[in-house]
Amino acid sequence: HHQQEFSLKYSFSGSVLAACGLCTVLLMVFTEYTDHVGPDEVNRYYLFFIQVMAMVFLGIGLLMSFLRRYSFSAICLNFFASSMVFIQAVLCVGTVQQVLWNQTLSKIVLDLPLMIDASFCAAAAMISFAAVVGKATPTQIVWMLFLQTPVYALNQHLVVHTFEALDMGGTIVVHAFGCYYGLAASVALSRHQRDYGESNPKLSSSYISDITSMVATVLLWINWPSFNAALASAAAQFLSIANTVLALLGSTLSAFAVSSYLDGKLSAIAVQNATLAGGVCIGAACTLKMAPGVAFMVGLSAGAISTACFKYLTPYLDLRFGLGDTCGIHSLHGLPAILGALLAGLIAFTQDESFLLHSSSTQMAYQIAAITCTVFISAGAGYMAGWLVSTVNLFASPTLEPDQMFEDGLWFTAAGREKDFVAPVEV
Amino acid sequence: HHQQEFSLKYSFSGSVLAACGLCTVLLMVFTEYTDHVGPDEVNRYYLFFIQVMAMVFLGIGLLMSFLRRYSFSAICLNFFASSMVFIQAVLCVGTVQQVLWNQTLSKIVLDLPLMIDASFCAAAAMISFAAVVGKATPTQIVWMLFLQTPVYALNQHLVVHTFEALDMGGTIVVHAFGCYYGLAASVALSRHQRDYGESNPKLSSSYISDITSMVATVLLWINWPSFNAALASAAAQFLSIANTVLALLGSTLSAFAVSSYLDGKLSAIAVQNATLAGGVCIGAACTLKMAPGVAFMVGLSAGAISTACFKYLTPYLDLRFGLGDTCGIHSLHGLPAILGALLAGLIAFTQDESFLLHSSSTQMAYQIAAITCTVFISAGAGYMAGWLVSTVNLFASPTLEPDQMFEDGLWFTAAGREKDFVAPVEV
Amino acid sequence: HHQQEFSLKYSFSGSVLAACGLCTVLLMVFTEYTDHVGPDEVNRYYLFFIQVMAMVFLGIGLLMSFLRRYSFSAICLNFFASSMVFIQAVLCVGTVQQVLWNQTLSKIVLDLPLMIDASFCAAAAMISFAAVVGKATPTQIVWMLFLQTPVYALNQHLVVHTFEALDMGGTIVVHAFGCYYGLAASVALSRHQRDYGESNPKLSSSYISDITSMVATVLLWINWPSFNAALASAAAQFLSIANTVLALLGSTLSAFAVSSYLDGKLSAIAVQNATLAGGVCIGAACTLKMAPGVAFMVGLSAGAISTACFKYLTPYLDLRFGLGDTCGIHSLHGLPAILGALLAGLIAFTQDESFLLHSSSTQMAYQIAAITCTVFISAGAGYMAGWLVSTVNLFASPTLEPDQMFEDGLWFTAAGREKDFVAPVEV
Repeated sequence: HHQQEFSLKYSFSGSVLAACGLCTVLLMVFTEYTDHVGPDEVNRYYLFFIQVMAMVFLGIGLLMSFLRRYSFSAICLNFFASSMVFIQAVLCVGTVQQVLWNQTLSKIVLDLPLMIDASFCAAAAMISFAAVVGKATPTQIVWMLFLQTPVYALNQHLVVHTFEALDMGGTIVVHAFGCYYGLAASVALSRHQRDYGESNPKLSSSYISDITSMVATVLLWINWPSFNAALASAAAQFLSIANTVLALLGSTLSAFAVSSYLDGKLSAIAVQNATLAGGVCIGAACTLKMAPGVAFMVGLSAGAISTACFKYLTPYLDLRFGLGDTCGIHSLHGLPAILGALLAGLIAFTQDESFLLHSSSTQMAYQIAAITCTVFISAGAGYMAGWLVSTVNLFASPTLEPDQMFEDGLWFTAAGREKDFVAPVEV
Repeated sequence: HHQQEFSLKYSFSGSVLAACGLCTVLLMVFTEYTDHVGPDEVNRYYLFFIQVMAMVFLGIGLLMSFLRRYSFSAICLNFFASSMVFIQAVLCVGTVQQVLWNQTLSKIVLDLPLMIDASFCAAAAMISFAAVVGKATPTQIVWMLFLQTPVYALNQHLVVHTFEALDMGGTIVVHAFGCYYGLAASVALSRHQRDYGESNPKLSSSYISDITSMVATVLLWINWPSFNAALASAAAQFLSIANTVLALLGSTLSAFAVSSYLDGKLSAIAVQNATLAGGVCIGAACTLKMAPGVAFMVGLSAGAISTACFKYLTPYLDLRFGLGDTCGIHSLHGLPAILGALLAGLIAFTQDESFLLHSSSTQMAYQIAAITCTVFISAGAGYMAGWLVSTVNLFASPTLEPDQMFEDGLWFTAAGREKDFVAPVEV
Repeated sequence: HHQQEFSLKYSFSGSVLAACGLCTVLLMVFTEYTDHVGPDEVNRYYLFFIQVMAMVFLGIGLLMSFLRRYSFSAICLNFFASSMVFIQAVLCVGTVQQVLWNQTLSKIVLDLPLMIDASFCAAAAMISFAAVVGKATPTQIVWMLFLQTPVYALNQHLVVHTFEALDMGGTIVVHAFGCYYGLAASVALSRHQRDYGESNPKLSSSYISDITSMVATVLLWINWPSFNAALASAAAQFLSIANTVLALLGSTLSAFAVSSYLDGKLSAIAVQNATLAGGVCIGAACTLKMAPGVAFMVGLSAGAISTACFKYLTPYLDLRFGLGDTCGIHSLHGLPAILGALLAGLIAFTQDESFLLHSSSTQMAYQIAAITCTVFISAGAGYMAGWLVSTVNLFASPTLEPDQMFEDGLWFTAAGREKDFVAPVEV
């Protein structure tokens, strides 16, 4: 316990201040604001930027707040880590997009699309965080995500520019990448500890924490069309919005129907998570023109599959492999993303080829290549990062004992006079 | 209790899946995306669409979360039912607007205005839901709202196209329609059960549930101008926004003043609800040019009347007629809507007639016709729907016993390991 | 206790109704809607208006909800008082801007920029309210803020039009003005009562109230760029947004780093408040073109200073001078605003002078003049207002005893059947 305070006092604040110092220098030397931002640019992008920020900085953290003794930490650390990744992503994504493959530029030009891209990168990082929330110390989180950002930027370039895969909503580069990076990091971090996953009695919700989490679900749902359409071309923006809304409607309805069928009751986990699977799944294909009924069916399938996975697959992987997937990101982000990447390839066959960058069958091949590479790159990098932060002492505070997991009191002092956080429900 | 599980497992999921199947087929055959959506269209409508969605999918459910043992269900079922009605409304409203009275079209064209119209329809349905929340089973909710959507679409056509009544903010077609449909359904559903209304000890709030509900109030308040202005013409958009803001300011101030006068304390119910009455009331007249002071006065009156009705009328109707109006929609939506429909007719007398579709006095007649027809159509249809879902077994799960009402545990399984939902306050 | 009911029943509702009557008459006689609002005007301002409204009407109140036995009152009274000040500010700010120094106009023209200005005025008032929340009666709040609005309007004119100080984001006219008005009022209101400040056991948080407050922090954070950019010229809008985002990222990171360094734990107060100091501080300079790294550094400094002040200065001032700054506005708004006003003067030296209204060194002088005048005017007016509402009986309900402070139950009746509000945590 005192070890953790020591680590927070020195490792954590030292790491953050060092990262801030480095970012400041790099920002001063290598970035400048764009000169060409008129009101049209703000009109075009700003609403979408806000909506995406609300999802990443607030929505994902609030969704994790279902942890009854870790609600406060989930919201705070998600907020902190989003800020950390965002500023770093401006540098990393900016460098990869503007400098590495475009040698004429000497400085990274900071404009609204780059800021949206940085928030996408933060979204991927928060998805990874959702796999280890409650089990990684703040210092471990800092370094695990610090190592993720450059890999994200390179993988994004591979998928979007090299493969020219369909992926406007980040199904591949955000959801699949974030998910498998986080899961691999979680496995590496676990070190075969007991009670690292669902057997930990504190990995559970209270009445009010289920409600805050549910509010986050609906908030994410409402903002999701903006996520998928944020960087779409003007011509494809409406399609991205409409396809996403229809897919989300589908996954909501099928999550409720399948969950009540499987359990004879509605599962809070299913309605908090699987209802969003349509948004994950349609992201790759959302710019394509399809019949509205197709988008709705994509959502129905994603919601049904995700609900079933939350009931059967997540507990199985936890028990069998010690995956310790706190928020079930494999069932919400991983599988629906793989499905979505492939469905985009299928739907591409129905498109006028002038609309695609590849012929239909080549497009399918690149979709497969993109999702495969992303899964392997992210899992490899995530495992390495998890191993580093749990063994190399420079980066790490002491790894948590099972009874220290999912516990706010270790990290936060409440407002006012109550000396320590006291969660309302006893274990 | 086991009956309810059985019903949820088969009736509910069967009903939802059947509705989804039907919607998928109809969407595939009869709808297509619009071809003419450029960036202007998105710029014009998308912000308003988001704001309305936030009200319907999140705000109304969160407002109902004041029920201390039913907060979670209120939010979830509102979210589910909004999705259900939205997808169905695309088909019903689309058919009535584009096909029935416009035979040249073979397919329903799905664009942002139609999606806004669908969310208006969902708003009306959620208002109806607010009358029976906690007392209708999920299966009953599905069918009660399934039957509402086509009637909504036809009544909207009658009011807006046949009568050409002033009703940009949906005072008549959303608030009055939703209210009287819900109240009539509630009466039919009650079957003279004891403790169906305010005498039920679970129809009460806890400290935290009053707070989540209050947050919803302010959220709805902030988004309300967008609701009233969403489909206004470019010329009338600013007026819709400004009139709505002023009316809401008025109803907020008068709700606080009147509530503290009547009780010597501020009533949580009044400040959660009557503060919004200005938005309901000004909806019909919001596109008209009036002195800002007039909009403010409309709000002052609506807030004062609504506050008084919450104190005196809602309990009286509950006791005398067993109305069982869980959220007091008659005082928030019903009476302010009737008042607003008539006030719009009065304010029409001050307008330049070139601005109206009728002469001023004819306009008043049509306002009266519109609100009268809407009240009768919605009440009749609602009573029929309530009767059907409470007696016809195909549609119905067993009607709830009084001690099963306002109780989450019957429908939901919490996240994590707690087997059943346990609300923090004992009855 | 009965005295307070009597005062709420008559003084409060009488005051509010009198103010509403006065506002109605003045609105009728002296205001009209603008004629020149096309869709461009709505496109340009409406999103920003909504975002600012969400901060003022919801965000600030929710931030104050950390008070465990006063959460509900904080949200409600903030909502009420924002409405009160908004309508009054339309008249006061409108008169000062359009009539006093522009005699050609006979009526105040109400358009979206004036509505944004009115919400800025309400923001300043809610900051002042945050100093006395829990300790002033509703009647005292009404009159304290009623007296503030005309002074706000005159001081805004002095700073923006007479001095032409850099202050697009309201660092001076909103944050400094609101802060010192509130602090002076709090001192005057205290009348040397014991337990007026941090020694009061009810001035503390519960687990859930810390969470609702934290959600407000992130909400305010996300909307802050819109606050600073709301009234910026088209050319400066992007810079206002981007500088504010970078400053907020900086203050978030430094608040976490410094707080964990100082305490060995993260302080809930620091992460709820000091994370926002970057937004306060950059407001004066946000329209200037600077290197992105400079904006980030401004945020880093503001966050670090604010965190340290929350730990050391706020308790010291409370103990030494009985300041009774409930929400610590001096550390979040006061000092970062003074710093920001001066930094804007410094950054002005790096600007092309054609971009400024003064030469660089004159600009610095005017920045100093603006912040100095604002601090003195607001503190003087605030002290007078606090003295009036705590001594003149016409305006005042009886001043609260220490055990009546921070207590919802005095003012609100809960929904449903629970007779009095019962907060979940006993003192």
